[in-house]
Amino acid sequence: MKTTSADRLIRKLRTEGRWSMTEDESKKLLQDYGVPVVKGKVVDRVNDAVLYAQKIGFPVVVKGHGAKLSHKTERGLVKINLKSAKEVREVFRVIKASAGSDWEGCLVAPFVEGSREFVAGLFRDAQFGPMVMFGLGGIFTEALADAAFRIAPFDEKEARRMIGEISSRKLLGNFRGEAPADTDQIVKILVGLSRLGMERPEIKEVDINPLVITPKGKVAAVDALVVLNENSDPPVRPAQYSTKAIHEALDVMTHPKSIAVIGATRTHSEGFPGMFACIANFGFEGELYPVNPRADEIMGRKAFPSLVDIGKPVDLVVISVPAPHVPAALKDCIASGSKNVHIFSSGFKETGEEEGIRLQNEIEAIAREGGLNIVGPNCMGLYIPKARLLTWVNGPVQSGPVAFVSQSGGNAQDYTSYAAEKLGVYFSKVFSYGNALTLDSTDFLEYLEKDDETKIITMYLEGVKDGRRLLELVTRINKTKPVIIMKAGLTESGARAVASHTGSLAGGEKIWNAFFRQSGAVRVETLEEMAEVALAFERLGKTAGRGVAVMGTGGGIGVAAADACTHEGLNLAPFDEGLMAKLREFIPPAGNMIRNPVDAHVILIEPPLLGKTLDLLSAQPFLNMFIISLHMDWLFARGQGQTTREIAAYIAGEARRHTKGKPLVVAWRQYSPSDSVRETLQAVKTVLREAGVPVYEGIPRAAKALGKLSNYYEYYRDRR
Amino acid sequence: MKTTSADRLIRKLRTEGRWSMTEDESKKLLQDYGVPVVKGKVVDRVNDAVLYAQKIGFPVVVKGHGAKLSHKTERGLVKINLKSAKEVREVFRVIKASAGSDWEGCLVAPFVEGSREFVAGLFRDAQFGPMVMFGLGGIFTEALADAAFRIAPFDEKEARRMIGEISSRKLLGNFRGEAPADTDQIVKILVGLSRLGMERPEIKEVDINPLVITPKGKVAAVDALVVLNENSDPPVRPAQYSTKAIHEALDVMTHPKSIAVIGATRTHSEGFPGMFACIANFGFEGELYPVNPRADEIMGRKAFPSLVDIGKPVDLVVISVPAPHVPAALKDCIASGSKNVHIFSSGFKETGEEEGIRLQNEIEAIAREGGLNIVGPNCMGLYIPKARLLTWVNGPVQSGPVAFVSQSGGNAQDYTSYAAEKLGVYFSKVFSYGNALTLDSTDFLEYLEKDDETKIITMYLEGVKDGRRLLELVTRINKTKPVIIMKAGLTESGARAVASHTGSLAGGEKIWNAFFRQSGAVRVETLEEMAEVALAFERLGKTAGRGVAVMGTGGGIGVAAADACTHEGLNLAPFDEGLMAKLREFIPPAGNMIRNPVDAHVILIEPPLLGKTLDLLSAQPFLNMFIISLHMDWLFARGQGQTTREIAAYIAGEARRHTKGKPLVVAWRQYSPSDSVRETLQAVKTVLREAGVPVYEGIPRAAKALGKLSNYYEYYRDRR
Repeated sequence: MKTTSADRLIRKLRTEGRWSMTEDESKKLLQDYGVPVVKGKVVDRVNDAVLYAQKIGFPVVVKGHGAKLSHKTERGLVKINLKSAKEVREVFRVIKASAGSDWEGCLVAPFVEGSREFVAGLFRDAQFGPMVMFGLGGIFTEALADAAFRIAPFDEKEARRMIGEISSRKLLGNFRGEAPADTDQIVKILVGLSRLGMERPEIKEVDINPLVITPKGKVAAVDALVVLNENSDPPVRPAQYSTKAIHEALDVMTHPKSIAVIGATRTHSEGFPGMFACIANFGFEGELYPVNPRADEIMGRKAFPSLVDIGKPVDLVVISVPAPHVPAALKDCIASGSKNVHIFSSGFKETGEEEGIRLQNEIEAIAREGGLNIVGPNCMGLYIPKARLLTWVNGPVQSGPVAFVSQSGGNAQDYTSYAAEKLGVYFSKVFSYGNALTLDSTDFLEYLEKDDETKIITMYLEGVKDGRRLLELVTRINKTKPVIIMKAGLTESGARAVASHTGSLAGGEKIWNAFFRQSGAVRVETLEEMAEVALAFERLGKTAGRGVAVMGTGGGIGVAAADACTHEGLNLAPFDEGLMAKLREFIPPAGNMIRNPVDAHVILIEPPLLGKTLDLLSAQPFLNMFIISLHMDWLFARGQGQTTREIAAYIAGEARRHTKGKPLVVAWRQYSPSDSVRETLQAVKTVLREAGVPVYEGIPRAAKALGKLSNYYEYYRDRR
Repeated sequence: MKTTSADRLIRKLRTEGRWSMTEDESKKLLQDYGVPVVKGKVVDRVNDAVLYAQKIGFPVVVKGHGAKLSHKTERGLVKINLKSAKEVREVFRVIKASAGSDWEGCLVAPFVEGSREFVAGLFRDAQFGPMVMFGLGGIFTEALADAAFRIAPFDEKEARRMIGEISSRKLLGNFRGEAPADTDQIVKILVGLSRLGMERPEIKEVDINPLVITPKGKVAAVDALVVLNENSDPPVRPAQYSTKAIHEALDVMTHPKSIAVIGATRTHSEGFPGMFACIANFGFEGELYPVNPRADEIMGRKAFPSLVDIGKPVDLVVISVPAPHVPAALKDCIASGSKNVHIFSSGFKETGEEEGIRLQNEIEAIAREGGLNIVGPNCMGLYIPKARLLTWVNGPVQSGPVAFVSQSGGNAQDYTSYAAEKLGVYFSKVFSYGNALTLDSTDFLEYLEKDDETKIITMYLEGVKDGRRLLELVTRINKTKPVIIMKAGLTESGARAVASHTGSLAGGEKIWNAFFRQSGAVRVETLEEMAEVALAFERLGKTAGRGVAVMGTGGGIGVAAADACTHEGLNLAPFDEGLMAKLREFIPPAGNMIRNPVDAHVILIEPPLLGKTLDLLSAQPFLNMFIISLHMDWLFARGQGQTTREIAAYIAGEARRHTKGKPLVVAWRQYSPSDSVRETLQAVKTVLREAGVPVYEGIPRAAKALGKLSNYYEYYRDRR
């Protein structure tokens, strides 16, 4: 690594009070990072320009050079395809005249021709730090915004995937008689920019535009711009707690022997019953102390005027007093030696108002000073079924393997209720952390990595304080515990101070896309989908491909299944003649369609035929997953639900001995307003759930869950 | 219109047995249709080439000319930017040598330079006929596939909208120092191609590529290709029934005084009870004749051995016998003088098998020969609540203003049950028409146009026989009766015999996009969405814009509402300071967020405050619609549902006096497993539905319905 020349260059700019490098300087620096720049020579006399042009051979380009010269093209200071000494002489004079007092010389370089122009660059995102972009260049850069992004650092394989993501990637192949681009060279450039981003915090932005592909496929950085950070000091971040300290604190919080509620109130029948009642009602079995100076007892427990009066530290303090009283409450925590706090109260930064922001800064200072571990403020807190700990109104006592980390308190309640009630998905640990005063999503995530009760991690995020840490953690944890994330906030302001289009092409959405592609995290759009996908991960094994077979009945399942599979990137693979012939041996033609989907009433009415069908289908290497579609209204008509119950029992038991371990799910439809059909549906759901068969409403939801499962395993197949 | 020269050209090609015009011929033809072609001269002697080049001035282009010369660029027969007589001489010889015996001369034309290249063209789609495309051209045409399409004919305004749809439209503006493109000229070209497509069925394809924009903004067709249909005869289509005849037949079918069921069976408790039982059970009040040679009576009605034995024509014959017996049954219809038939039986074209296709052709011939009007085969048939006519198992007796035309029988049952049960949407007339033997979707549509009981038309389509008629009808009817269409079959084969990229860029999806954009039909993706959107059209008035205000409570409604509105193209417009100050006068700050959404518990607990809020919001011109979000679990906690019922009653009654006629809908959330909360929810839904307030599960569905409503009214605002 030729650090010395880069160091010297950066120092030179600082000394001269410049932030933008000249093209010549930019190219020199980038060359050290593996960028194949089109080199040239800066000359300040016309005769030298001609001599140099003759030396390198025509055609050449001549560009104005000077520390203060920017927007050279727009100012007419770039002249290309000059074929003679005469032309060089002419344009040299024109450029010198146009540039005026900013002129310091001209850069003479070989003219590299190519009809395919790309752009590559580096910029810094507020959440994710140094990011690299690659996209279509030339006059189309802004008009088409066809670009891919990656968070640095990344390796060559990742760079290659990045190149494959742009729509105009066809231009990199054999194109209109021109040779395929040397993608190895592009990979080297992108990895070089990634390295530069990591090694040189002084550099704010790099813009290589255009990156020309010659007719022979060579890659050449024809123009480049490097911009330094105006502020050379990295931002001061508050001291972070160590991972070990956070881990220990969360261990105590999630298994507390004692809890105190500051602001405990007498329970009331109207509205929210209060934090104290929530915890007491859920059946917390440890010591539980109400703190309220205006009460003697609350719900049969002696009340304390202040936290300190309890006379010993407690494992978890829940603060439920108006925002202005929170600073005092935190001081009490410190005074009593209680380190772990959930602040339920709201009225801080989230209000967007001055007083709220001031209060949040105040409590953050108190908390960090006192070494407090804070969940919140402005959040619902904790739900740990095994510890009988719940800081909101309702939640199932049953626990399960799914964890949830949520920026929103409302979503923590809604999602856990929905998942349990509708899908039979239960939870290990749930954290609603709101404004993330000292503990952010990444802290909970890292804790859950080591939590034996957690097999799957679900997250609701609006933003994150440290995007790089999130990427690092998710990339690591996702391998063994699928991380399913709902990223809300499409309208997130993408405001970043960037001068070039390298950064301006990157909206928040594109940056988060990069995060998902790099980490392999499973992306979902709604809370319902998050629960449905978690169910698939909980109950199903690996997929080896994207082939799906659908079996069952129901109006137009053919088109519906095909549309749903296409939409989710699954392959409703057609059966070959041999397979269809074997199916025809026991599926009569009348009323049954033997193809994919298998639209055959008979295999539901006579369950062993479903087993035979699955035997044949699961033996096909191109079929990796199965959806059985049950139209509850239609099935009910036979034997008033008896047939339905029989097929459900078969799927719950015998059927899975015929799938060779390939994932199988059930999709149901039910429309008629019949209570008996609905009761049958409920019974079917129960028997399937208890047997561990995921059950979804409709083929589209089933296909979506299987599509996400397939994405996950494909991510790791691609990286093997 | 210079028809003669075009006629002469086409005749010339036919005589010579050619299908492709030369560039010179293509340009001559296109010039007559308003395309600004770059004219040139065909010469066969080098001296003439030089003379012509000197006459028009350098630089010029020289291209090989000949009836058999195609792929000129790839064969090296195009030389551009020639600046001297010497260059012209040289390339003339090179081109002549390369073209060999195919050479008939060289085309010499001015060289038009421009960095912005587009493409325009015409092709014929199997469903929709002549279609025009416009897109990014040059080397990017195929790589980026950035193109818009329209079904011909269309006017200048439509052409302008088309141009505005491509992603690279920015290139048409002031771009990198080049003048904005003369879009009037592009509009003229597109309208010209539309006219050409309508007037000249002999022309199969037109490809104008590139269409260059000069630095001064002029538009120039630099190269062009016109291809004729190899088969000059239009396809023979079976004689169609007249609109009047169809109208009369459908009038009889939907108000039958007598029905006969061929293949009536004794009802059985297992599975589908049979067509006869379906009709009898729904309470059909006219004459109902079972036809079955092996029964004396069915469900207490005398059975007839054959249709003819009834001794008179019946208004509607329902055929429910195996496919091979359908031809005989149709002959009986003709013999008995019964003209109107629903064929329930399947086993025809939809099987994709030879015998099924043969049978369908046979019955189509019988039907057309006998002048029969056929609904089906392979379909569920008719559901006309007011006529007490239903040809499937279950449907509400209640009728409403929504019609449904469905290619799928299963969807007809599922959708109508869902809409009625979940949303309170009821139907006027429902047709499930399956394979569309003589009556297709367009026939039902045209009938519904005049049906006084129908105010809104919903359709489920997989394909359509006559796309142009569909476009024409939907465009006309949609103005007064919103037409809501679910187009299924994403994987529809887009196979069309096209030689150039003009057509190959158009997948089925892009062509249907053009249909929706042109007709203004409301596009939905699922049956549930179709019902939800129909509800909005049934209950709500016009929208004058896309501004939405959301009011209510519930975890994280801020982010969720913003994401949902962004997703549906709605504007969750921020309130200004003045409005917020007025709201603050009666909404206390504690626990309430005064912004958009208004996240304020208090306005739900004290309903008159909701009225005051609505007064203020509905007075804002930028707010056009309102969503009230009710979190049932949270609200229930207050007064065990009493508060919920009170606010529902207020919204059902008083609240709408405060909206100034602007649309208002309710979105609910409910997650906790509580029967009492669910009963309250049910009661709330009932009271709101009865008052005509649309109720949706969740803000995203509410936003989607309002988004579609807004699209509809915006379509007509744009066309005023």
